[in-house]
Amino acid sequence: MTRNAERPVGPAVFAPVPGFRAASAASGMRYRGRPDLGLLVADPCRGAAGVFTRNLCPAAPVIWSRGITGGRAVLVNAGQANAQTGKKGLEDSRACAEAAAGRCGLKPSEILLASTGVIGDPLNMGALLEALPGLCAGLSPEGLEGFARAILTTDTVVKAERAEGAGPEGAPYTVWGCAKGSGMIAPDMATMLAFVLTDLPCSPAFLLDALRKGAGASFNRITVDGDTSTNDSLFILSSGAAGGPALESAESPGAGRFREILTGLLMNLARRIIDDGEGATKTVTVTVKGAASPREAEAAARAVAESPLVKTAFFGEDPNWGRVLAALGRSGASLDPYRVDLFLDSVHWVKDGIDNGREAEARQVMRRRSYSLTALLGRGDAEASVLTCDLSRGYVEINGSYRS
Amino acid sequence: MTRNAERPVGPAVFAPVPGFRAASAASGMRYRGRPDLGLLVADPCRGAAGVFTRNLCPAAPVIWSRGITGGRAVLVNAGQANAQTGKKGLEDSRACAEAAAGRCGLKPSEILLASTGVIGDPLNMGALLEALPGLCAGLSPEGLEGFARAILTTDTVVKAERAEGAGPEGAPYTVWGCAKGSGMIAPDMATMLAFVLTDLPCSPAFLLDALRKGAGASFNRITVDGDTSTNDSLFILSSGAAGGPALESAESPGAGRFREILTGLLMNLARRIIDDGEGATKTVTVTVKGAASPREAEAAARAVAESPLVKTAFFGEDPNWGRVLAALGRSGASLDPYRVDLFLDSVHWVKDGIDNGREAEARQVMRRRSYSLTALLGRGDAEASVLTCDLSRGYVEINGSYRS
Repeated sequence: MTRNAERPVGPAVFAPVPGFRAASAASGMRYRGRPDLGLLVADPCRGAAGVFTRNLCPAAPVIWSRGITGGRAVLVNAGQANAQTGKKGLEDSRACAEAAAGRCGLKPSEILLASTGVIGDPLNMGALLEALPGLCAGLSPEGLEGFARAILTTDTVVKAERAEGAGPEGAPYTVWGCAKGSGMIAPDMATMLAFVLTDLPCSPAFLLDALRKGAGASFNRITVDGDTSTNDSLFILSSGAAGGPALESAESPGAGRFREILTGLLMNLARRIIDDGEGATKTVTVTVKGAASPREAEAAARAVAESPLVKTAFFGEDPNWGRVLAALGRSGASLDPYRVDLFLDSVHWVKDGIDNGREAEARQVMRRRSYSLTALLGRGDAEASVLTCDLSRGYVEINGSYRS
Repeated sequence: MTRNAERPVGPAVFAPVPGFRAASAASGMRYRGRPDLGLLVADPCRGAAGVFTRNLCPAAPVIWSRGITGGRAVLVNAGQANAQTGKKGLEDSRACAEAAAGRCGLKPSEILLASTGVIGDPLNMGALLEALPGLCAGLSPEGLEGFARAILTTDTVVKAERAEGAGPEGAPYTVWGCAKGSGMIAPDMATMLAFVLTDLPCSPAFLLDALRKGAGASFNRITVDGDTSTNDSLFILSSGAAGGPALESAESPGAGRFREILTGLLMNLARRIIDDGEGATKTVTVTVKGAASPREAEAAARAVAESPLVKTAFFGEDPNWGRVLAALGRSGASLDPYRVDLFLDSVHWVKDGIDNGREAEARQVMRRRSYSLTALLGRGDAEASVLTCDLSRGYVEINGSYRS
């Protein structure tokens, strides 16, 4: 993956995607003086799909959206999660969908919902419903940037990606996505919302399959703090405006290329989330190779990527490899401690479990904004990667000093 | 458990335990100007036992001590872990045992070893061997306080406990213990060293069984950061100096009472470790009741006790109960989110998964140095408790700013 610090989100990313309109508004429902409502509408809509948190305390908008099979629009609010709000929360979600549908000429069962913010707070329905007419009236093909900004909470930068492809008959199409982070980022599905649009015609079943596989390689491979949220949702909508035959299944012509583009876009969005993790000063790709099984490879990579001691060493730029070995040793993965090799980027940091006399070079790598930490276990052929950030003073400030 | 802030370790705790001598010395092997070597000798020794880290990267002293069946003495150093030091590390451990044995009139196979400090650093054998004669010459019944201080690393206070009991024939006996924390504290076995002495005669087999059960209720139920160390070791030695018949098994007269005393002492030591966790400003007992199984109860309690978002909320004294629900929901424990109740001490914080309107009282509890957080899942009869601390700026400072 490329370094996002070198790849800022420019205005071209927010050019219209054929068949979509978007809008944003400042409702004041929790935040003051900034947009906190977003709306996306596909017109026409060829298909939609979503994947959601596996947390056993799903928010009301998650419960609502899981039940939608013919989604055409997404309404998002930032600041209040509408999670653990009980029957009232479900009623509020329904009322949001009904109000948005009425204003947009859609059915409530076509409105997908997403919320992010403080758990337990009921939605400020008065403020939301008051802002809704203006939100719907503002729908425009030029609205994508405003939408991408309105969904943020503790994020410090907007996160969006755009990719182009050629359909089965050569016609160009676009895949566009935006996301919000930035704490409670962990499997399964980080605390994150992400919205992907394409004008390529795709069936709902194909979209769901492509989205699941793409999420497995991206959003389910990142971690800020090991906490998995009640509200994680990833949506995709297809307008079909690019024309041509629809992708119906993995066997359809062009399906493989579309999936590659989608997965790459999701991976780039995931990286933007980690780069902007709460208080993050480092982005580290933790890769475990040579594990006995894929399950062990992932367990080992996650143990390192989530270890507070390893993450504070990233923050301190301290090449304290013993903490990495200790995390591997408690991960549940089988290993011989004196067969483990560690690399920081290309620096051979630890050889056969012993310091390799490269501390100065290792320290140089750790001064970078972004680098890789690779562990070779020498037990088999399985490997896994997890993208993580450091644990900094800033994380504690953000999460300990006020209610985010 | 009582609050340790109200129960400082006074000089009476360090009165001699019949049949034991202890010593400490400043070797300068890593730390400067403070004691970093400790020695305990039982004379005579009726039995000894140890339990050790389950990390797959055990330190050389752990490998050495696991192989000892007739231990009579323990040699400890602080500052260098002698972990991931390969064959050289094992040779160094053997040389330590041989040197200490020669000076004390014991066999090397009677010397248990423990080290704590930076992983990967080889032992500074020159400094250690130079300090050893003075260490052994200093052995004295009055040496327990010096020993308890010499084993510390980032700990800010000495941790020791003393309890008295009456043997099967009424003769009084003593159980004494000391420990060091204070980061990398997690199951199984925190990063910790602890040493327990008793003058009650006990067989090695009985000691091992009592120690395992006691550790399960104490050191395996605390967490600072979820990281499990390469060096965790808990030893017990019996001098038998109190006289009377030896405890040979759980059925021996007086065995039950001894185990109660031992477990209580280990729980108090564990609490002292959490109270002094790296950067800790809060000690919280997380209890889950009404879980479907003991495994689910423990998983749920650990998920809450180790959640960075929950722990930063403890630090910020922010009654943000949604983070607790989110942690329970991802813990793997089965639950209905609208059947969950939460209590902070006696304040009924969340009722049926919904805010119970007690935020001001909840905030009052969170201002305390020490409190309990109890979750009722309403699924069954199983329960579990985990003792944890908050995640503070201080933790990041200690672990991010220099090599501890």
